[in-house]
Amino acid sequence: MEIIRTPRMMREIIKDLKAKSKSIGFVPTMGALHEGHLSLIRRAKDDNDITIVSIFVNPIQFGKGEDFDRYPRDFDTDCEKIKNFGVDYLFYPDAKILYPEGYSTFVNVENLSNKLCGKFRPGHFRGVATIVCKLFNIISPNRAYFGQKDYQQTLIIKRMVEDLNFDIEIIVCPTVREVDGLAMSSRNSYLSEKEREAATVIYKALKEGERLLKAHEDPREVTNKINEILKEERLVKEIQYAGVFDPLTLDEAKEKKNNYLIAIALKIGDTRLIDNILVEVN
Amino acid sequence: MEIIRTPRMMREIIKDLKAKSKSIGFVPTMGALHEGHLSLIRRAKDDNDITIVSIFVNPIQFGKGEDFDRYPRDFDTDCEKIKNFGVDYLFYPDAKILYPEGYSTFVNVENLSNKLCGKFRPGHFRGVATIVCKLFNIISPNRAYFGQKDYQQTLIIKRMVEDLNFDIEIIVCPTVREVDGLAMSSRNSYLSEKEREAATVIYKALKEGERLLKAHEDPREVTNKINEILKEERLVKEIQYAGVFDPLTLDEAKEKKNNYLIAIALKIGDTRLIDNILVEVN
Repeated sequence: MEIIRTPRMMREIIKDLKAKSKSIGFVPTMGALHEGHLSLIRRAKDDNDITIVSIFVNPIQFGKGEDFDRYPRDFDTDCEKIKNFGVDYLFYPDAKILYPEGYSTFVNVENLSNKLCGKFRPGHFRGVATIVCKLFNIISPNRAYFGQKDYQQTLIIKRMVEDLNFDIEIIVCPTVREVDGLAMSSRNSYLSEKEREAATVIYKALKEGERLLKAHEDPREVTNKINEILKEERLVKEIQYAGVFDPLTLDEAKEKKNNYLIAIALKIGDTRLIDNILVEVN
Repeated sequence: MEIIRTPRMMREIIKDLKAKSKSIGFVPTMGALHEGHLSLIRRAKDDNDITIVSIFVNPIQFGKGEDFDRYPRDFDTDCEKIKNFGVDYLFYPDAKILYPEGYSTFVNVENLSNKLCGKFRPGHFRGVATIVCKLFNIISPNRAYFGQKDYQQTLIIKRMVEDLNFDIEIIVCPTVREVDGLAMSSRNSYLSEKEREAATVIYKALKEGERLLKAHEDPREVTNKINEILKEERLVKEIQYAGVFDPLTLDEAKEKKNNYLIAIALKIGDTRLIDNILVEVN
């Protein structure tokens, strides 16, 4: 695995790979790699000739007062974790190279970016769309891999790829969970032991929501039930959103349909956690 | 010259050209081609193996009440004009294909987009950056050609290319002028005979500004003088901006420097005209 630090170097390598007609699979990450990331890498490896992983904690997707400074960074451990996965290139650029003085271009996917997480993290998805656009231009992958845990992000990136005419296939992989159902997240490391236990309420609420929807309950009733379950957990400090949504528009589901998104964002202590499941009802 | 109507078709051709290691020169236009456009095509032809011209009147760069509906469109005449130039492909997409229902992604180059023309055409440069980003992704040119007449546009596109890590060289070609100095523009066709005559005041003011700057006059004085000249022409209905600016920041030049931009935007009747020159002082 070769570690590449600059867009220029990365691009030279890409040109060479393209000249050899190699297919490129790309897994963008912010590091602090866990089983979720590893599942994306495994999939990229299966689908492509060449696998490229990036590690970059993107400053412009963090708001003021968010956890940019304390976001977990451990490059050596990350390298150790992926060294046996057959990753060909690890792109590990510096923020000063990607956002030099005078930087001023931003990509915004309107509408979708203002819903769910967007309401609580203004500018977050603009930062995500911008860095993904930049990385796509540097790496020109054939396929890029994202986890379903960040469902809204995957929707926004798919929209951007279509709208801006990128020739890239976006592949969304299933959320990887701990044995008790908690979705893998780099931010789980912020949780105390008690908080970690309390966090299982999220998956519990998602699964109960799924059960009710499959029993043809009204989605608004299901939203109420999900919120009741979450409120029973005393360590849940703030429910930002929790309920049943349309998986394409992210609007609240107000009537019975065949496809739902159940999505939750809440704080346990100071730690913000999100999770979701897609539900198909026949 | 092959006429291509869809991004999908265009991309197939591009893939084939890339596989053959052909260099691609791209000239994006809104049609109504004049000598300015032709000079860009000539240059693209000189520099590259393959020359691609696009004709697309981009709806999202026109504001409400602007001239989108009456913007001159004459595809057959355009084809006739370029048929002997050795253009390889003419990309001529439909607006419904480039902006389908649900389209929602926009590229914005902050700061630069709000100055000069941006003050009078809110959203204009966002529309320009977005369509250029889309066309760059479809065509993946090695080089793209723009006229200096749209100086602010060239600055914004260069910034976008650098910021979003496009691997494309932006080449700015000199403004092509009528014998009396009026910059070639598709919008000149809007002018009546009298207005056309009056429009020569723009180049007159630019050249007098240049003379004064080269004589080491204070740029603020030169700005005043330029405005005086323009106001003497009775058919000039509205001076949107006119004066001496910094060629990098587009801010008003308030002290003596070695490099200036003199730029003018005004209305003659209902027709908005812009022009500029760069001045180097030793």
